This record gives sequence, C-alpha cells and structure tokens, in this order.
Amino acid sequence: MAIVLAGHQYGKAENRVVRFQRDAARHEIVDLNVTSTLRGDFADAYLRGDQSKVLPTDTQKNTIYSYAKEKGIATVEGYALELARHFVDDVEPVSCARIDVDSHLWTRAVVDGAEHDHTWTRSGGEVRTAAATVAGTGAEQQVHVVAGLKELTLLKSTGSEFRDFLVDGYTTLEPTADRVMATSLVAQWRYDATCLEDGFGFDAAYDAVRAAMVAQFATLHSLALQQTLWHMGRAAVEAVPAVVEVRLAAPNKHHFLYDTARFGVENAGEVFHADDRPYGLIQAVVARDDVPEAPLAWQR
Amino acid sequence: MAIVLAGHQYGKAENRVVRFQRDAARHEIVDLNVTSTLRGDFADAYLRGDQSKVLPTDTQKNTIYSYAKEKGIATVEGYALELARHFVDDVEPVSCARIDVDSHLWTRAVVDGAEHDHTWTRSGGEVRTAAATVAGTGAEQQVHVVAGLKELTLLKSTGSEFRDFLVDGYTTLEPTADRVMATSLVAQWRYDATCLEDGFGFDAAYDAVRAAMVAQFATLHSLALQQTLWHMGRAAVEAVPAVVEVRLAAPNKHHFLYDTARFGVENAGEVFHADDRPYGLIQAVVARDDVPEAPLAWQR
Amino acid sequence: MAIVLAGHQYGKAENRVVRFQRDAARHEIVDLNVTSTLRGDFADAYLRGDQSKVLPTDTQKNTIYSYAKEKGIATVEGYALELARHFVDDVEPVSCARIDVDSHLWTRAVVDGAEHDHTWTRSGGEVRTAAATVAGTGAEQQVHVVAGLKELTLLKSTGSEFRDFLVDGYTTLEPTADRVMATSLVAQWRYDATCLEDGFGFDAAYDAVRAAMVAQFATLHSLALQQTLWHMGRAAVEAVPAVVEVRLAAPNKHHFLYDTARFGVENAGEVFHADDRPYGLIQAVVARDDVPEAPLAWQR
Amino acid sequence: MAIVLAGHQYGKAENRVVRFQRDAARHEIVDLNVTSTLRGDFADAYLRGDQSKVLPTDTQKNTIYSYAKEKGIATVEGYALELARHFVDDVEPVSCARIDVDSHLWTRAVVDGAEHDHTWTRSGGEVRTAAATVAGTGAEQQVHVVAGLKELTLLKSTGSEFRDFLVDGYTTLEPTADRVMATSLVAQWRYDATCLEDGFGFDAAYDAVRAAMVAQFATLHSLALQQTLWHMGRAAVEAVPAVVEVRLAAPNKHHFLYDTARFGVENAGEVFHADDRPYGLIQAVVARDDVPEAPLAWQR
Repeated sequence: MAIVLAGHQYGKAENRVVRFQRDAARHEIVDLNVTSTLRGDFADAYLRGDQSKVLPTDTQKNTIYSYAKEKGIATVEGYALELARHFVDDVEPVSCARIDVDSHLWTRAVVDGAEHDHTWTRSGGEVRTAAATVAGTGAEQQVHVVAGLKELTLLKSTGSEFRDFLVDGYTTLEPTADRVMATSLVAQWRYDATCLEDGFGFDAAYDAVRAAMVAQFATLHSLALQQTLWHMGRAAVEAVPAVVEVRLAAPNKHHFLYDTARFGVENAGEVFHADDRPYGLIQAVVARDDVPEAPLAWQR
Repeated sequence: MAIVLAGHQYGKAENRVVRFQRDAARHEIVDLNVTSTLRGDFADAYLRGDQSKVLPTDTQKNTIYSYAKEKGIATVEGYALELARHFVDDVEPVSCARIDVDSHLWTRAVVDGAEHDHTWTRSGGEVRTAAATVAGTGAEQQVHVVAGLKELTLLKSTGSEFRDFLVDGYTTLEPTADRVMATSLVAQWRYDATCLEDGFGFDAAYDAVRAAMVAQFATLHSLALQQTLWHMGRAAVEAVPAVVEVRLAAPNKHHFLYDTARFGVENAGEVFHADDRPYGLIQAVVARDDVPEAPLAWQR
Repeated sequence: MAIVLAGHQYGKAENRVVRFQRDAARHEIVDLNVTSTLRGDFADAYLRGDQSKVLPTDTQKNTIYSYAKEKGIATVEGYALELARHFVDDVEPVSCARIDVDSHLWTRAVVDGAEHDHTWTRSGGEVRTAAATVAGTGAEQQVHVVAGLKELTLLKSTGSEFRDFLVDGYTTLEPTADRVMATSLVAQWRYDATCLEDGFGFDAAYDAVRAAMVAQFATLHSLALQQTLWHMGRAAVEAVPAVVEVRLAAPNKHHFLYDTARFGVENAGEVFHADDRPYGLIQAVVARDDVPEAPLAWQR
Repeated sequence: MAIVLAGHQYGKAENRVVRFQRDAARHEIVDLNVTSTLRGDFADAYLRGDQSKVLPTDTQKNTIYSYAKEKGIATVEGYALELARHFVDDVEPVSCARIDVDSHLWTRAVVDGAEHDHTWTRSGGEVRTAAATVAGTGAEQQVHVVAGLKELTLLKSTGSEFRDFLVDGYTTLEPTADRVMATSLVAQWRYDATCLEDGFGFDAAYDAVRAAMVAQFATLHSLALQQTLWHMGRAAVEAVPAVVEVRLAAPNKHHFLYDTARFGVENAGEVFHADDRPYGLIQAVVARDDVPEAPLAWQR
C-alpha cells in the first residue's frame, strides 16, 4: 500500500470587507466577511514544498478587497461570482474556486424622524450568506450559486404541539398541545442557471424566500419542528422559480415552562426558562424533483 | 497583623427568563437575562461554613422566575426594583440587593404585510440593560436605578476627523480629515428619584436617551471620538430631566482604508478592512453638577 | 415538477455529560459534549406532522446520560459505538445513527507535589473528538469510527519559509526564509475495522497519532503549511496501522513582524503582532490507497 | 445646574504581542494581550475637540510593541510597570497610566520524549493576568501591582456539601452532603511595595499563590463555595508575604445529578449534567488588616 494525498484545497478566510458608495450625499454600506477557497493543481506544494503554482492567500486577500471597488458589489452573489470566475479564468493552476460571503446588515440611523445619509446601526440578528462556485473553463465551466441566511432567530408563543411520538424505555417527555417553538435558522438555497442572466434579482429573491419561510413558521399550526421546516422549504421553492433546492438546519431552542405552582403562582404558558444546551437539531433538504443534484454547489 | 474577610457578595447570574402576555390574541414577549447580587450578613458562611443566613442562589432563581408572573414585567426597571426590594425587605440577612437585567429585543414577524400576533424574530444588535440597587430598610432605604444599552454598533462613513494630536517618538499615525468612525457603544445612565414615582416612563426615557445619543453621533462633525462621546452624554442628560449621570465606553472599531492603488485601483474612502484588535477604547462620565455622586448605583 | 423531501435527519445536540468513577479513593473524570443524529423513516413527521415513528430528542438525551452509567465510558469511541448501535438496533424506524463526542481533558490537581485523588483543573487547549456511525442491521451493518482533535494550537518560532510562490498583479507579499508558523489544528482520522475488535486501544492510538503529528510540525523544516500538513497526515497513517484516512484543516494564524525599526529598535524575529482575521486556511486529505473511501463515515 | 465632564480615560485595548527569545538554540515565547489606559489632562479633546494633548492610541500600540524588545519581558508585571511609568513620566498630559496584561501560557512540544527547542502548544485553560498602575511623578508617585489569573476551572468530585441554609417560601433546593463542586476562578491579588524591589520574584509569587489556592480547593472539606473561597484567599495571603489583598470571583458551575433511576439505572454520584446558565456567583475580598486600602490599584 501507499499513502497518497487524496484531497486538498486552500484559501483566505474571513476577509472583513466594508464597502461604501459615496457618489451621492446619501451613502450606502456593504459589510462582508469573505472567504476564498481554491482547488486545483497544488499537490506539489504539499508533497514537495514547491510553491510555484501556489497563489498566496495574501494575494487572494488583495484581490477580494480590490474587486470590491473594481467590480463593485451590486449584489453579494454577483461579487462572489466575479471573484470565483477570476481565480479560475485568470490563475492557471486553479481549476475550481468557491467564494463564501457573510453579509452583515445595517439600518440607517433615524435622526429627527428622517433616515440619515451616512450613519447606520448594525442590525444584528440574521446574517445573509452567499456562495458562488466556479469549476472548469470555457464551454465546460460549471457555475453554482447558493444563497442563504443564518442566525435568524424565530419564536412563536403558541400554535405548536408535540405529541403522539414514539415511546421507548427511556422516554419521559410529556406530550404537549401548546408550547413555545423557537429556532435559530440556518437556510441555504440553490438557484438554477436563471440566476446567471443579466438582471437576475438576487436581492428580491432573497426577500421573497425569507418572507415565505417566516410566513410558514408563523402561520402553520405546527405538529413538530420537522413539519414546519418542510413547509418552510416547500414555500421557498414555490416563492421563487429559480430556487431548486433548500437546505435547512434548525436547532430547537427549548423553552421550559417554569414550575411556579410550587409557590402558589399559576403559570399558564407565560413564564419560561430559555435553556442553552442540549438542544434538538432538525434538518431537512427540500428540492424540485426535476432538477439534478449538484454536490459541487454544496462542497465547502 | 490578621487576615480578614474585607468584602463579600453572592447571587444567581444569568437567569434566562422569557415572559409572554397571552391575555389577548396579540401576544407580547419579554426576553431577559437576570442576575441577582445580595450583600449583607453572610460572613459566617465564609468564615465558618455556616449557611443559616444564606438564601440559596437556587431560591433567588425561583423568585426571579416567579416574580415575572407575580409582579409582571411592565418595565424591566420596575421588575428589577420589585426583586431588589423583596430581597432586602423580606430576607432578613440581606442588607443590599442589586438586580441586573439584559433585555433582548424582538421584532414582530411580518406576514403578508401585517405584524403577526404571536411570532417574532430576535432583533439582535443592541441589548437594553437595567440595574436596580436597594440598600437598607424603612425611611433609610436607598434606591438607585441605572438604565442603559450595550452592543449598539454605530458607524458613520464621513464627518469624522482625527488630527493635530500629540506626537512623540513612537507616533507614526497620519492625520486624517475624513475617516470612517464606528463603535459598539456601552451606555449607562442613572435616574434621580423621579423615576420611583408611579407612572414614570422608563420606556419613553430609554427611547429619548437612545435617540439623543444616536442623533449626536450622526450629526456632530467629529474631531475625535472623545468629542462625540461628550456630546452624546450631554444630549442624553438634556433629553430626559431625570437622567443625572451618563457613563459611556466606546471601542474605536478601526476601519483601515485598503491600499488598492498598488493594483491601479483608486480607493477614495470606499473600501476598508474592518480590523478586530487592537482597538481604541474611549470612556467618559457626563453628569449634572447639582446632583451628588452615587457610587452604590454603580457597584457591581 | 414536484417538490420533494430530498433528505432529513434529526437528533439532540450538545449533551454535557460528566461521568465520574468513584469505585476507588482515586476518582476518574470524563467530560463530554455528545450529539446524536438519527436518519431513517421519518418523512411522515415532515410531510404530515405524524410523530408516531419519531423518538423524541429528549429520549435521546436520556439515553445518552443513562448509557454513561449502563455501558460506562471506557473509551469515548466505545461509548459512541454503543449508543449508535442502540439507536439502530433497538429503535425500529432508525436506519442510521451517528454519535459525535467532544471530550474535554482534565489534569489532576497537584497538592504538595502529589496528584490529588478527586480534584482536577480543566486542561483547556485541545479537545479530543470521536464520531461513530452505524448503518443497517445484521450482517449488512456498516460501522465507522472517526477519531480526532481540534483547537490544538501549535507554533514554531523558526524552521518555516514561504517563497518562490506564484505571482500575479495582486501579489504584494514578500517572500520569507524564516517566519513564525502557527495553527489551530483540526484533525480527524478514520480507523479500519480493526478498531472494532475487543481490546483495540483507542487511547493509545490517539496518543500515537497526536505525537506523530506534533513531531512532524516541530521537526520538518517547512516550505509551506501545505507541506507540513502532508507530512503530519502521512506520519499519522504510518504511526497507527488502523488509521486509513486523515483529514486536516489548519488556519494559518498569521504573526506579523512588528516594524520597530521606525523607533530605532532592531527586531530580528522577536516581536510579532498576532493577527485575528483574515487567515489562510489550508486543508488536506491523506489516505492509504488500498482502502475504499467511506463517505458515510464523514457525513454529518 | 450645568452638565459637566465628570470623568474620562482612554487607551488602546487588546494589543496581541508575541515575543520570542531567540538568543540561544532553545527559544522562549511570551504571548500577551496588552491594554493601556491613560488618565490626565484630556478634557479639551472631549469638550472642544482639541487633540493637542492626546497621544494617539496608535502611538500607545507602537510603544507597547516596541517596549517588548526595548525593555524585554522578563516578567509580565515588570513589563507592565515599565510601560505605565513611561506614559506617566514621558508624556506630559498623562497623570496616571494603567497597563493590563493577559498572558497566555504555552507548553513546549515533546518530540521523542524531549522538549522541543522552538515548538510549543498553547496550554489553554487558565490565563495569567497582571495590572500595573502608576500615578503622579517624582516622590509623590504611587505605584500598584495586581497579579491574577482567570479561567482556571477547578472541579472536585466529592468533599463538598451544601445544607442547613436559609429557607423561605421560594426555596425548593434539597440539601446535599456530597456534591460536585466546580468553578472557573477569577483571582486577583495586590502586592505591597516589596514587589518594586529589584529581583522580586513575580513568577515564583504567582506559582505560590496558585498552588496555595488549588490546595485549599482540593483539600478543604467544603460546607459552601463561600467557605472554600475564604480559605483560598487566606492561604494566598499566607503563602506570599507581599500579597496584601486577594479578590476572588467564582461562578458555581452547577453539575446536576442525572435521574437515571427512572430507567432502572442506579446513579450514585456518577453521571451529571453540566449546566450552562444560570449559575451561582460567589465573591470575596480577603485582606491583611494592617495595610491601607488601595482603590486606585483596582480601578479599571
């Protein structure tokens, strides 16, 4: 037997790019955390220490910052695509590039009832994500775009049950017909090739997917977080035709009713302890059945 | 010489209380992290292991959760006051109690353009804080309320300079007449006794102080973060007569202009690297000069 | 087209199990963070809200804690295997179970020069990891064990170069023949079926793999972190015959020489700024070429 | 009434200084996180935006890194003192300077049974801390040194009780005669002027204080964490004559016995759930009664 280098990739992680538009009195802000990952013909760097085909991660950093001006960031997906294409098309040893972007949202500061031109507060809460993967060149080039969000914490104070579950010798959970359901959602959705057309509305698609998922979480009378996730994924695909696959991961952030009856205080679903760990973790993949799988789109 | 117990206190930290109002179809949510701190006649627990005067921290936890229903949480400051008074008035060995509360904000989910009755998203971003301290009993009882916020990240993309500073042999900083200024503000403000009157509007006061500070950050042409802080504190005191002292701590979250000229790309205040560490840390205390200091209000 | 549930799994994450052996005066401690993930016939819970085949995550939690006593934790890998087999063999709808374990290490407290019987300090630093995956029943049952570590921060103050790399229009990095190299290693290695034999020494294998990797990091004169990783992976496979595949992820924790020459102070590789972000991220998979791939072992 | 600037200070926080000794084949590493805080005549910067007396925080950073070479870091306390004295003595508007240092510990890598000359693993676990405060100049100059540690997680699996405590209407805790006691200790101790003498052994003092505290935690049969803290503080003062005051903060990291009897599994103090929040928080100050208090030493 021999020992072989069976896989490898490298890149620059967590470049904290902040880009302003200052052409008009009303400035705009984009606040990103960008990670590049390159795959290709780099085995010599591992096996022999030969760097002649290795584009330094420092160079990747320079490119990431420079492209924020050169190409602009009209959409995070478009910016990620530009970067991924550059590395594959312009750097010979690179056969595949992936660009991951976290986008932190800001809210315009309000002064005397009006939005301020050049001051913002960071929104906190959810982070918008995007990943573009480009592999190969010319007519063979594959391109994938996955958009998403994370740290979107959702909670509903009624309209959620959990009962009639499987029971074994370790089961002590009481069934409930009315509980608090909360999660910190991670959602990622893959677009089909439509998104590569000029003028595809990444921002509108994001808003539509987010709205569809939030609406399902809110309005579905839930028999389980599993059921809620399915309907959120289904609604996302229905909301935007270009969305062909949705991956959801949802921690069940447990809220335990506090037993205040011991002190003569009735607690009818009003006071809860929000627990940290452990937590249920529910995952689902929802997809259109007429679209081929695309493992490369998801490979990190 | 002898070795003595020169100070002591104890409590239950980070009780994660979530309280719903479910009386009407439109529910309300309050999401708190509550810490109790008791001072008093507990030296025997330290010196001799005698617990007879020690109210367990587990009991403090039970009380914190139960009071969320018994007394309700009309305002976080009022709830903190109720708890602090209880420990001092009802638990004999306790001579002083402090209740610290972090309040996490939620935004009502929007479904089909309308706010949902019982679903929210966690706002992230700033955390509202409150601390009530009660010491002594009867006519001698001292009461202090400090409100505040933390993790309020503010940024302005112009209107900030830093120049004409002191220069020594270690100074290499270039002066600048136009920079990005950003901070993650921690602000705490002390109310005078007015706030103990029935119907004092803690929520309105919070909104007024926050608005005054944000307005100063946005509109003051800043010669230094120090100057901005002074004006923020001053404006807070002016905005709400009951506010007698404001304490501000502001990390200078550095944004460094990225040198893209090396690649032939002009960067006129458009692309920045948001750095993590180190960071400047600027602090200020702003107060009315006709009000005595209150160290007890600030003692954690 | 139709929208389908294309994948799903669920479990209980981050059960904080602490297990003591108290049979002898000299106690032992095991401190784990355990996550269960179940796959199988749960589509009805998603599609129709039917929980009849769903073993609650609360039940999984109960089982995880109870098994810590019932089966004991002679090794973390063995304990993970017992749990994974239980869910597949004893819970009918479960076709595949994965148990992930983080093991936090403790050091016996030293009192008057001797190790104490029942007091420890938490070691911090590296976390030992283990994952067992069991799929199918009877003769068809597949079993995989992956061991590993994370947060092992390694640094060498010399013996590392980086030069003769690819240069393009965005390259500004200076080559260096002597730099600080540091990483916070994540390593995972897969065992072949040998590890399922009675008496396989998981702890000895862990120690041997760790020692082999640390030795390579220390002694190899490094031309790149890539080269170092390859030799670390290769040495791990050579050190323990049961190891058939190693996956390594290594952030390049950059240390930048501080320019003190501006102040007339020579700095010959002595004073550095340890930067946070961005960081290079180098990855490698090293494997024996006579062993089939096992994607299931790695699927989280 | 007028609104006044009642207090102010500023500095550079979290400078990540890594310093190597490379004079001999066997290198040495010091890994610090350094924060400077300056007080003095800076009101004009706040009130009028006048920076002429403000030494930029960037300059403070430069000084911190340069001093790591100029003065060296024989001990972290000595290095902090050099920096604090410099700012007060050499920068005219500065009347008081405080330098806070976190020191991260590293362990020499072991290769083939021998410690390696220039490779280390980061120890994790406890962080050593030091703070030097210098105020005033010449004969009036006050100097304070506070050493300490944080994140020292200690656990004992027996030898701890908690019972005979105060009971009120909210008390549901069961007394226990044998529990797990664990904490993540924060300890800070103040030295008297002896420490300013040439050759004072800061490292030996640190080791002696730490050993005395760990020994008390381990060997005292504890009736409460309060009692344990008192004896830890007392032992620290006794162990090192120069230590005149010790401040201790100790979260009670609760370990709850898991009820496995429900599954027919006996659990005699063997399997616990390590809970995150809430936690008890116990604090104590232990001091020699013949030494004046020194509030300036503790002011951050």
